[in-house]
Amino acid sequence: MREFIDQLIVKNLDNPFLRDLSDSVHLPLDIAFTTDSYVVDPIFFPGGDIGTLCVNGTVNDLVVSGAEPQYLSLGLILEEGMDIAELEKILISIQQASQEAGVQITTGDTKVVRRGQADKIYINTAGIGRIIAKASLSKVQPGDKIIVTGTLGEHSLAVMLARGDFGLETEAKSDCAPLNFLLPFWEQGVFWMRDITRGGLATVLSELAERLPHALIVEEEKIPLSRAVLGATQLLGIDPLYLACEGRAVLVAPESVADSILNEIKKHALGQGAEIIGSINDKIGKPGELLLATASGGLRLLEPLTSELLPRIC
Amino acid sequence: MREFIDQLIVKNLDNPFLRDLSDSVHLPLDIAFTTDSYVVDPIFFPGGDIGTLCVNGTVNDLVVSGAEPQYLSLGLILEEGMDIAELEKILISIQQASQEAGVQITTGDTKVVRRGQADKIYINTAGIGRIIAKASLSKVQPGDKIIVTGTLGEHSLAVMLARGDFGLETEAKSDCAPLNFLLPFWEQGVFWMRDITRGGLATVLSELAERLPHALIVEEEKIPLSRAVLGATQLLGIDPLYLACEGRAVLVAPESVADSILNEIKKHALGQGAEIIGSINDKIGKPGELLLATASGGLRLLEPLTSELLPRIC
Repeated sequence: MREFIDQLIVKNLDNPFLRDLSDSVHLPLDIAFTTDSYVVDPIFFPGGDIGTLCVNGTVNDLVVSGAEPQYLSLGLILEEGMDIAELEKILISIQQASQEAGVQITTGDTKVVRRGQADKIYINTAGIGRIIAKASLSKVQPGDKIIVTGTLGEHSLAVMLARGDFGLETEAKSDCAPLNFLLPFWEQGVFWMRDITRGGLATVLSELAERLPHALIVEEEKIPLSRAVLGATQLLGIDPLYLACEGRAVLVAPESVADSILNEIKKHALGQGAEIIGSINDKIGKPGELLLATASGGLRLLEPLTSELLPRIC
Repeated sequence: MREFIDQLIVKNLDNPFLRDLSDSVHLPLDIAFTTDSYVVDPIFFPGGDIGTLCVNGTVNDLVVSGAEPQYLSLGLILEEGMDIAELEKILISIQQASQEAGVQITTGDTKVVRRGQADKIYINTAGIGRIIAKASLSKVQPGDKIIVTGTLGEHSLAVMLARGDFGLETEAKSDCAPLNFLLPFWEQGVFWMRDITRGGLATVLSELAERLPHALIVEEEKIPLSRAVLGATQLLGIDPLYLACEGRAVLVAPESVADSILNEIKKHALGQGAEIIGSINDKIGKPGELLLATASGGLRLLEPLTSELLPRIC
């Protein structure tokens, strides 16, 4: 086990903290703390793998909570007989994603279970970040804008299709990416951010609406969707508003600066598809409601995702 | 999922941090950081369950690294169809163990995988502690004493027997417990601590020896073993020095204060079985060696555990 850790894990994830190989590492910080387990199936999919996902997913939880990501822990649960070449590929992805996101893997643990007691590999990362801001929902008022940072649903679609769920082929690639480029927008007045993961945009915004004394209105025609997602979801009868992303966020920004923030986001490679998709509203709907102004001119109440399949999309 | 989390998880683990249910929590600290995944089989065993284990294991990693345990994250991977009553029992154990160890579960995540893709439940905890001391191996010198805080091997034995590995019955109960009571000994001059987990005392001390310019000598007759462990290991031909504990530690203390530290440890309920079992040595053996002075008067070189079965004992 020790040799395995030295040869495979430390080699691929090398940094001064990890080199110590002690069970607990000392870090200098004032901190935000988060955790996620990753059980995605398949472990390799167009646009990423469980390694990129386990870094970016946890990094993004920190970013949207107002913290600059700094340190990750890494807990591996491996199925006996897992292909070591695949494991190494995943570790390389973890290292590359860590570098891209500016975080270090500082402490870790590996457990092995017998064949049939896990599906290849499950990964947990916990993340620590330096606090730079805090969401301030109490300042949100009618007229404030809702911005999404890019097209929706590619991650879910890429994973589901890679798994062969629908016997369909598309060019969809996961949007899995780190959202650190959003950190400066906290200073520019953004009130709230959330990464658009499980349950998709509709669920994330429903949960926001529940916490506000206003309604939210989202315009269907403004919601950015790639051709691949638009085509596949129409064909399959899936609502893209409920599909998870792993590299997109939704922001609430003051009306006065929303356009300039949108322009800034669009300048970044990961924000090119950003749009203002709606606003906080006091005239239509009731407080706590999330309403979709449909392309056909109607209004539809959006509810959070309730019955979840066992998706293993993250 | 949200209802499941509210009703089952937040209800059982309630504290002000967790109540927010945000994906990342802000904490005020200067910190140590650690993580472990727990895949113990069976999930309930004499003396504890996977819930007590996932708190104490991570708490103890912090204590022995010189940090006062403060906050834990909790990542659950559940097999579809897992008995909810069993899950709740585990969550109650987590909450009780957290209270006993003075830590709060501040952030968490739950994933569900299909039947046959996990064995009931796997848990990851990451832990954050306030740094109060640091091991100082450079100060260790010949004559310094090696102290174990209690009898060895009960945890491993209790789990293996509960699993039915040997068709044997004993009164062995896991030693799983938080080691916070050892924290004051950092101030009293202890140079180094380690919890005696995977690979047992022999592995932990071998790894220590490798890092020292001295040999370590341990006296077989001083090593505290319960009747249950002594009987079962003799019967089964297992060496108790390689059995994992989850509530025992080994300390290196200056010769001058070793006796007084031993007496202090023995006053604590979890330290009643403590003993000075050996010392740092320059006369016998070579630097980096761990030697066992056997009951029969011989000297035996102890190596770290190399070939690990897939034990799932933690």
